Amino acid sequence: MPPTLFIFSLLIFFSSHAAALDFCVANLKGPQGPAGFSCKTPAKVTVNDFVFTALTKAGNTSNIIKAAVSPAFVAQFPGVNGLGLSIARLDLAPGGVIPMHTHPGASEILIVVQGYILAGFISSDNSVYLKTLKKGEVMVFPQGLLHFQVNAAGIPAIAFPSFSSPDPGLQILDFALFGNNLPTMLIEKTTFLDEAQIKKLKAVLGGTG
Amino acid sequence: MPPTLFIFSLLIFFSSHAAALDFCVANLKGPQGPAGFSCKTPAKVTVNDFVFTALTKAGNTSNIIKAAVSPAFVAQFPGVNGLGLSIARLDLAPGGVIPMHTHPGASEILIVVQGYILAGFISSDNSVYLKTLKKGEVMVFPQGLLHFQVNAAGIPAIAFPSFSSPDPGLQILDFALFGNNLPTMLIEKTTFLDEAQIKKLKAVLGGTG
Amino acid sequence: MPPTLFIFSLLIFFSSHAAALDFCVANLKGPQGPAGFSCKTPAKVTVNDFVFTALTKAGNTSNIIKAAVSPAFVAQFPGVNGLGLSIARLDLAPGGVIPMHTHPGASEILIVVQGYILAGFISSDNSVYLKTLKKGEVMVFPQGLLHFQVNAAGIPAIAFPSFSSPDPGLQILDFALFGNNLPTMLIEKTTFLDEAQIKKLKAVLGGTG
Amino acid sequence: MPPTLFIFSLLIFFSSHAAALDFCVANLKGPQGPAGFSCKTPAKVTVNDFVFTALTKAGNTSNIIKAAVSPAFVAQFPGVNGLGLSIARLDLAPGGVIPMHTHPGASEILIVVQGYILAGFISSDNSVYLKTLKKGEVMVFPQGLLHFQVNAAGIPAIAFPSFSSPDPGLQILDFALFGNNLPTMLIEKTTFLDEAQIKKLKAVLGGTG
Amino acid sequence: MPPTLFIFSLLIFFSSHAAALDFCVANLKGPQGPAGFSCKTPAKVTVNDFVFTALTKAGNTSNIIKAAVSPAFVAQFPGVNGLGLSIARLDLAPGGVIPMHTHPGASEILIVVQGYILAGFISSDNSVYLKTLKKGEVMVFPQGLLHFQVNAAGIPAIAFPSFSSPDPGLQILDFALFGNNLPTMLIEKTTFLDEAQIKKLKAVLGGTG
Amino acid sequence: MPPTLFIFSLLIFFSSHAAALDFCVANLKGPQGPAGFSCKTPAKVTVNDFVFTALTKAGNTSNIIKAAVSPAFVAQFPGVNGLGLSIARLDLAPGGVIPMHTHPGASEILIVVQGYILAGFISSDNSVYLKTLKKGEVMVFPQGLLHFQVNAAGIPAIAFPSFSSPDPGLQILDFALFGNNLPTMLIEKTTFLDEAQIKKLKAVLGGTG
Repeated sequence: MPPTLFIFSLLIFFSSHAAALDFCVANLKGPQGPAGFSCKTPAKVTVNDFVFTALTKAGNTSNIIKAAVSPAFVAQFPGVNGLGLSIARLDLAPGGVIPMHTHPGASEILIVVQGYILAGFISSDNSVYLKTLKKGEVMVFPQGLLHFQVNAAGIPAIAFPSFSSPDPGLQILDFALFGNNLPTMLIEKTTFLDEAQIKKLKAVLGGTG
Repeated sequence: MPPTLFIFSLLIFFSSHAAALDFCVANLKGPQGPAGFSCKTPAKVTVNDFVFTALTKAGNTSNIIKAAVSPAFVAQFPGVNGLGLSIARLDLAPGGVIPMHTHPGASEILIVVQGYILAGFISSDNSVYLKTLKKGEVMVFPQGLLHFQVNAAGIPAIAFPSFSSPDPGLQILDFALFGNNLPTMLIEKTTFLDEAQIKKLKAVLGGTG
Repeated sequence: MPPTLFIFSLLIFFSSHAAALDFCVANLKGPQGPAGFSCKTPAKVTVNDFVFTALTKAGNTSNIIKAAVSPAFVAQFPGVNGLGLSIARLDLAPGGVIPMHTHPGASEILIVVQGYILAGFISSDNSVYLKTLKKGEVMVFPQGLLHFQVNAAGIPAIAFPSFSSPDPGLQILDFALFGNNLPTMLIEKTTFLDEAQIKKLKAVLGGTG
Repeated sequence: MPPTLFIFSLLIFFSSHAAALDFCVANLKGPQGPAGFSCKTPAKVTVNDFVFTALTKAGNTSNIIKAAVSPAFVAQFPGVNGLGLSIARLDLAPGGVIPMHTHPGASEILIVVQGYILAGFISSDNSVYLKTLKKGEVMVFPQGLLHFQVNAAGIPAIAFPSFSSPDPGLQILDFALFGNNLPTMLIEKTTFLDEAQIKKLKAVLGGTG
Repeated sequence: MPPTLFIFSLLIFFSSHAAALDFCVANLKGPQGPAGFSCKTPAKVTVNDFVFTALTKAGNTSNIIKAAVSPAFVAQFPGVNGLGLSIARLDLAPGGVIPMHTHPGASEILIVVQGYILAGFISSDNSVYLKTLKKGEVMVFPQGLLHFQVNAAGIPAIAFPSFSSPDPGLQILDFALFGNNLPTMLIEKTTFLDEAQIKKLKAVLGGTG
Repeated sequence: MPPTLFIFSLLIFFSSHAAALDFCVANLKGPQGPAGFSCKTPAKVTVNDFVFTALTKAGNTSNIIKAAVSPAFVAQFPGVNGLGLSIARLDLAPGGVIPMHTHPGASEILIVVQGYILAGFISSDNSVYLKTLKKGEVMVFPQGLLHFQVNAAGIPAIAFPSFSSPDPGLQILDFALFGNNLPTMLIEKTTFLDEAQIKKLKAVLGGTG
C-alpha cells in the first residue's frame, strides 16, 4: 500500500488548512478590529499560546478592598482571541470585596473553589439576586448588569469567573464615578449623591474636578 | 402573452414566502426566547405593526428629574422584534437630567432635535467623554457603559436615541442601588458610600433594607 | 486610609483595559475586514470621535428628486465602527422623493421631525406596507427590502433614519439599473421594461450600453 | 471488563444530550421566532428530516420567463432550520431568465451543472459584475444586492444556488413593483418609470391601483 | 421632596422592563428554538435559577475511564440559557481519562484546581497541542476540534471547563463510532480500522451491526 | 431636465459607498482576524474575484481513498470572505470514500449531481443518520458532527457540498489520530484502540511517536 500516494492525494485538504480559522491567536502588536486582534502567523503558534499559567498565583490582596482580580482576557492571554470566552481569578481575603461593577461585553459564570462568597447582581427592573456560595457552587451573571462579590466568612476565598467574550471589559462603579475628572457637579446631578460624599471618595480614588 | 401562466409559474416562489423571515412582529403573548419574541401570524400583520405613534407626545417631565424617557422598544413597539434596533424619545425640561445609567444589551446613537444637551459616557479605563450637543448633533454611546444626559440650557430639550437592539435594557444606577431591598451594609461595602448617604437616597427612591 | 495602596491594587484591573473593546473607532486608512475597520489607537481617541455634527445642516435638495440623504455611516462617522448602528438625515423639499432603494446590510428605523412623509416598503411576498407619517411618528423597515419615502405635503420634511449596522449600504434602484453600463438588452430581459423606457432613464442617469 | 459499568458511567454525558442543539429540525406548526422555527421533538427526528428529494425533478419552465426556481429553504426543508444555510434548484430553458431580484437575508453561491448561464449582480456603488458561467463554474452574490441569471445558450441550463441562511427570502423586482396594489403614481414618483410602462407591466403581473 | 412623584415619573422606564431580555431562564418544558429554550416567566425567576450546586460533589469515577464529567449546560442549569456560556466539572481518578471528543458548538477554557492533567487538542492541519497542566493552569480548546484530558499523576485531579455556549454539545469519539448501530463495514471503510478492532470495541461499548 | 444636477445631488450617496461592506474580497497577504481576512482594495475588485473555475475539473482520485475533495474556501476563493458561505467539489471513483471527518466551523449541505453516494452523520447522542443519495438529492450535516460519504455504486459519483462559513475547516479523523506525532500510548488511552492497530495506521498515514 503506497502511503505517499495517499498522503499526496490529501494535500488538497491541507492546502485549505493554511488559512483555516481553527483559532486566531492574537498578535497584540497587529491591527485590532471590532471582532478582535489580528492573528499571529499560524506557523509561529505553539501550545504555549493556548496555555496560561499566571492564575496559579494568588493576586495581591494587601489593599483596602482586600481583594484582587487577575484577568486572563485577550490582552493577557492572546490564545482566547476570537474564541468567544476568557477567564479570571478572584482572591478575596477575609473582609475582601470585589466592588460593584459591570462587564459591558460579556456574561459571567463564576465557580467558588475555596471559602464562602456572597455574590449578587441587580437586573434592569431593579430586582436583587443575592446568594452566598460555597466551594463548588456556581453563579451566573447576565451581561452588562451591576454585580459584586464579597467574602462571606473569616477565611480567604478563591473563585474563577469565566466570561462569554475574550474581552469582556470591566467597569468598576467607584472608579467610573470618582477615579477621573468627571466634574463633581455633574456627578451630583446624575447620581443624586451629596457633594461631600463625592469629594470624599474622589480624594480616596484619585479623582479631580 | 398569458399572464396567468406567468403568475402560476411563480407560485413556487411564493410557496417559500409564507415563512420568509422578512420580519417577525412580536406576539407579546407568545413564548419568548433568547433571540426575542415569537412572531405574530404573518397573515395578521398590517402596516400599523411597523408604525409607532406614541413618540409624538412629550413625556411627562413634572418630576424631580424634570425629564422623561419614552421607549419604543419591543415591549412597546412589537414591529422591531428581531430587526436589531429600536428607538426612544428623551424630554428634558430646563434643569432636566437623565440619570447615570447603562443599556446592558445595546449601543446607543442619539440625535438632538431641540435645545442643548450635555451628554457623557465613561469607558472601562475610566476616561470621561463629555460634550454639549446642539440641535442636529449626534453622539454615540458604546454598549454597556455608564452614560447620562443633562439639559444644558434654560430651554426644553428633545432628543431621539436609537439602539442596536430591539430590547436594549436600561439599568438606572440610582434605582439599582437605592430603589430595592439591597441591604445598606452591602451597598456600603461594594460602593464605599456612607451609610447616611445611602439611607437618604433609599428614602427618596423607595428602597428598603 | 492609604489611597495609593488602593490605586496600586487596582492596577491589575487597568492592565486588562488597554485592549478592552469598549469601542473601536475606525481608522479609515487602516485595514478593513468583514467586521469593519481596524481600530484607531485608543490613546488618540477623543470625545470628538463619538460626536458627529454634519447632520445639523440640511442636505442640498436643489435636484430633480428635491431630496437629499446625509449619511453618518462608518465612512463619515468612524466612531460607530463595530457598534452595530448608524444614522442619517433625510431632507425632502415639497415634491421631494427618496427613490425606491434597499439597504443590503441593515434594518432601518425612521423618525419624522418635520413635515409629512409618505413611506412604504414591500415584503418578499409582495405585500405593500404604506403609511403617511407626521412629526414624531416612527416607522421600521426590515433589512434588505425595497422601500421609499415621499414628501406628503407642500412643506419641507425632515427625518432621521437609524440603521442596525455601522455600514448599512444603500442600493438605489434607478442607479443600479440605469446609472451604469448594464446592457439595455439585459435590463429588458431581467426587468421586462421596454427598450425605450430604459434608454430614456439611462440618458438621465448617465447610463451607457 | 464490565461494559455495563462503563456505559453507566457515561450516562451523565447522555443526560446532557437530550437538549443538545446539534440540530433543530423545524416544527413548521410550532411558534416561529427571529432565529427560526421551534424544534421538532428530537425523539421524532429521522434521517429523512435531513434529506430533501424534490430537487431531483426539473421545475416547470413552461412560462413566460422560461425558468423555474425550486427552493429547499426552511419552509420546504425543515432540516436546515438553525443551521445557517439552504439550497435551491434553478432551471433555465433556452431563453430562460431568473428576473432581477434580491435575497434580503443571505448571500448566495451558485454552481452551474448544465449549460451556460450569464449571471450578474450590481453593487451599492452601481458597479456591474457580469460573467457567463459554464458547467462547474461558481459565482458568489453578496447579501441583499440585485442580481439575475439568464440562459446564455440555446440549450437548457441547470444550477444549484446555496444560501447563507435557512430562510434567505426572495424579492423579485417586477413582482415587488408591479404585482401588487402599489399605486401607479407612487411607482412613477419613486422609480421615474412612465405611467404607460407601469400599467403595461401591472396588466401582465396582476397588479392593481 | 415628593418621592412618589419621582417614582411615578420613572414608571415609564419600568414599563419597558417587563420584557427586557436581561436574561432568559430556560423553560425546559417550553418550545426550543435554534437560539435556545423559551424563557421562564420573569415573575417566577428567583436567585436559585442563577445558582447551580451540583458541581460541589465529585462525579462517580468508578468506571473503566476512571473519570466523570458533570455538566452545567442549559439542560441541567436553565439559568445559562441565552447567556453564551456554561460550565462543567471534570473528575479524574488516578489513571483517569476523558476520551477523545469534540464540542460541536463551543470553544472550551479549562482550569485545573487539583492534581495534574495532560491535555491536548489536534488542529485541522493535524498539529498536536499537548501540555501537562498543574493546579491553577488554564488551557483553551478551540471550537469543534478533537481534544482529551488524562490524569498525569498518581493522585485525583479536578478541573472546571467553561464553554462559549449554554449548550456546547459533546461528541465522544468512541461512542460515536462504536456505541451505536453504525455498520462495521462502514466504520472500516471510513476509518481504516480493522474489523476485529471495531468488533472488539463494539462489544465493550454496546454497539451493534 | 438637467441630469448633471441630479447626478451631482446623489454624490452624497456615493461618498458613503467607498467603504460600503457589500463585500470584502480577501487580501490573502493582508492581516487576518477572527472574522476573516482583510479586504482587497475595492478599486481593484473585478467580477473574477467572485467567480471560481477550478471546480470544473475532477479532483485526482488515483489514491487509496479513490476520492478527492476540491475546496472553494476563502483560501482558494477569496471572494467568499465575510459572506458566510463557501463550496467544494467531491469526486468519488467506484469504491471511493471521503473518510470520517468534521467541519469545526460550519454546517454542510450536499447535493449529488452524478452517481450514488451513501452519506451519514452521527449526532451527540450517538444516533446514526444514514442515507443513500442519488442525483439531485440533498442532505444536510449539522455543524461539527462526524460525517462521511461513500460511493454507493459501481460508477463515479460527484457532489457539491456547500458550507455555512467561508472557512469551515476540515478535520479528518484518521489524519488527526494517525498522521502526526501524537504518542501511540496517548492514542491508546484516549481511543481504546489497540497499539498494533494504531502503529499500522501510523505507518500508512505518516504518523510518528
